[in-house]
Amino acid sequence: MKSISDKGLTGLIPAEELAGMTGESVTLHGVIQRIRRLGWGAFIIIRRHDGLLQCVMGNEGNEDILEKLDVEQSVEVSGTLKKAGIKDSSINPSTVELQTDSIRIIALPAEQPPIDMTKKVLDLHIDTNLDLRPLSLRHPMERARLKVAETIVAAFRNSLTDMGFTEIRTPKICSVGAEGGANIFKVKYFDREAFLAQSPQFYKQMGVGIYERVFEVGPVFRAEPHQTSRHINEYTSLDFEMGFITGFEEVMAVEIAVLRDCLEAVKKNCAYEIEMLEADLPRIFETIPSITLEEAHGITSEISGKDNTGEPDLDPEEEKILCTYSLEKWDSEFLFVTHFPTVKRPFYTMDDPDNPGTTLSFDLLFRGLEVTTGGQRIHEYDSQVKKIKSFGLDPDDFKSYLQAHKYGLPPHGGLAIGLERITARILRIDNIRLTTMFPRDVKRLTP
Amino acid sequence: MKSISDKGLTGLIPAEELAGMTGESVTLHGVIQRIRRLGWGAFIIIRRHDGLLQCVMGNEGNEDILEKLDVEQSVEVSGTLKKAGIKDSSINPSTVELQTDSIRIIALPAEQPPIDMTKKVLDLHIDTNLDLRPLSLRHPMERARLKVAETIVAAFRNSLTDMGFTEIRTPKICSVGAEGGANIFKVKYFDREAFLAQSPQFYKQMGVGIYERVFEVGPVFRAEPHQTSRHINEYTSLDFEMGFITGFEEVMAVEIAVLRDCLEAVKKNCAYEIEMLEADLPRIFETIPSITLEEAHGITSEISGKDNTGEPDLDPEEEKILCTYSLEKWDSEFLFVTHFPTVKRPFYTMDDPDNPGTTLSFDLLFRGLEVTTGGQRIHEYDSQVKKIKSFGLDPDDFKSYLQAHKYGLPPHGGLAIGLERITARILRIDNIRLTTMFPRDVKRLTP
Repeated sequence: MKSISDKGLTGLIPAEELAGMTGESVTLHGVIQRIRRLGWGAFIIIRRHDGLLQCVMGNEGNEDILEKLDVEQSVEVSGTLKKAGIKDSSINPSTVELQTDSIRIIALPAEQPPIDMTKKVLDLHIDTNLDLRPLSLRHPMERARLKVAETIVAAFRNSLTDMGFTEIRTPKICSVGAEGGANIFKVKYFDREAFLAQSPQFYKQMGVGIYERVFEVGPVFRAEPHQTSRHINEYTSLDFEMGFITGFEEVMAVEIAVLRDCLEAVKKNCAYEIEMLEADLPRIFETIPSITLEEAHGITSEISGKDNTGEPDLDPEEEKILCTYSLEKWDSEFLFVTHFPTVKRPFYTMDDPDNPGTTLSFDLLFRGLEVTTGGQRIHEYDSQVKKIKSFGLDPDDFKSYLQAHKYGLPPHGGLAIGLERITARILRIDNIRLTTMFPRDVKRLTP
Repeated sequence: MKSISDKGLTGLIPAEELAGMTGESVTLHGVIQRIRRLGWGAFIIIRRHDGLLQCVMGNEGNEDILEKLDVEQSVEVSGTLKKAGIKDSSINPSTVELQTDSIRIIALPAEQPPIDMTKKVLDLHIDTNLDLRPLSLRHPMERARLKVAETIVAAFRNSLTDMGFTEIRTPKICSVGAEGGANIFKVKYFDREAFLAQSPQFYKQMGVGIYERVFEVGPVFRAEPHQTSRHINEYTSLDFEMGFITGFEEVMAVEIAVLRDCLEAVKKNCAYEIEMLEADLPRIFETIPSITLEEAHGITSEISGKDNTGEPDLDPEEEKILCTYSLEKWDSEFLFVTHFPTVKRPFYTMDDPDNPGTTLSFDLLFRGLEVTTGGQRIHEYDSQVKKIKSFGLDPDDFKSYLQAHKYGLPPHGGLAIGLERITARILRIDNIRLTTMFPRDVKRLTP
């Protein structure tokens, strides 16, 4: 028998902490991102978990090791941290560098990268970038985008937890689809057919009966055959659902609070990434303007000259027009559009008693793109059964879901934010594929 | 245009905070969990997001409303918080009760529950419990189990984040399986076949090349046809992977630190739940004993009289024997078993150069069950290609995964903890299905 202990185990030193350690001797590890050789020696830039560190090494006595160094080697470096003022936004911390006494090579790549990973901006064709994802993500700018996405996830969780929401995890293999339509993936589940969750909608509503307020951060799957820059077939949905609402605008109000927390977290925790990406974060806001779909169509029709009146949804062109209009007219990069028609929203959506044919629903538009869908849901059993039937569906197919209503649910509503979409618009990335590690689309299943 | 604001929005008041608000007038909402009528009035127990609150209402002037009240009604209650000393472990806070002035019914169930939800312990047949999950999870003891699981997840995240790990989210629809074998679900992905992730293994290893240390909390899918109390087909995997390890025991050391954080979080944040469930948490430990598989077989053979020598794995009976032995002999409820044979571990596992035919791998046993699998991985490209071939597989099928190795990876290792299993053993629940909201097994796809 051996006794295993975690005594002496240390975490990685964050870049922020390194910045305050000038004068200290350290031994660190990392992977060589790039090397700049000069007459007197070399700058060796190593990739650490949260930034690039500049290591400086003179030639004298180091000729052998300097000769051997190359990119993507895993190394251990020892030396003393010195003050520096490095003008390279990919370096973090940029206020210190390692005066390097020794470098030890720990592992070697088998091949040199087929792309130039030392460039400031990778600037690859998107297919090349995605084909080489295990490599391309090692570039600091690619990592930076993911860091922003992860920061949003963490802030979403914290913000909702503080408001009394409980995190849940719900099944991704389901017997029925929550969102209807044909865009659902089929799974062979032993001797029968199952489906991949299009959303955690049904389970969130059951969750309201259990915890009153719930949220989930998880993958959802949409078999949409569109090959566009704003669609991927597996994405991360930031979902919440809350009970005892006084109306669907309360859900919108919670979204305002949550988004503000997310943006503040990005501003605070991603300063390095934001600077490197030269991102212009949206202004932190107190309010968000809201218009009905009817008003929205009026605005877009007037601006584009194309009559959209009566259309059941917004087309991508209208989303762009409305966002430009909102920024100019109301100084807001975010815009709520409400009251989508009954026919365009899933059967769990509550109809607006004051506006027959429309629902207590909303989308949130941001920088030209829909990033959220939400609304109030039906909580009464009889109403929900009736609406399922009116959609031509059989309530028996939703029997286990309807238990939530049958045994009582408070008035409730919720929303889903597409993580990749909101990250892409915050960073003004044209293709949402670049905001996720390993995107899935109609043609892509690897890496 | 309307302007939506979050001004005045408030979170739910946690039970802990309510406990300190005696003398204050409050208006709260909740769902009636149970009612106890007495001569002078009634105790109305309402379910809030994090506990049950006792509301006391006298008959005088309240005859009408008291007449109407019933379980699973959504209500708003107003009154004054008073000191109390309630001897019912399902009540939280138990040190105050609401002297209730008024109750307003907000929503009604359509039907009464078909099971007695007012019992202290639900005590249902497991199939009944699971069939009625949207209802049964409203019982405080059922919620309590999930709260413990969520607390473990949160602590796992915090612990690793503090050690410099980055949270990642990786695809669940994949072109190849990471764990080999037949237990993989097939998905119809447009015009081709895809698979559901058995684990995030390949992506975690790619992640090591990107961030050095990564973790993921997400669903994994195993098409195991076993209908046992310790198998479900979709479960939550707590995964981490770390670079620059000096050996596989460093992974075990990190697990010790993480598990200690998880247990401490459960102890601290789930006091109410632990008391209600009468759970005996494992002692917080400094070290965990570790034996090789060969030693393990020696021990079990001696105890059971059944010769297990040379078997490539532990059977469930041996896991139980070893845990009993470990507790008696080394006073530890946790036990590492190491050096599983090459043939029993996936191709990414590193062989032990000192013990040919065995691997630098481990399992963690806890209270009779394997709750973790981990080990050191192969980081050199040529070695990995060679081992894939020796498994009779074609390296071309793993081309995108092998980019990670080809372009350089530090020595690394990691592990996966089954959330449902560890929760079940912490709480001594026989069937892991009860530790998750909506379990999936061979026969169950609903709710």
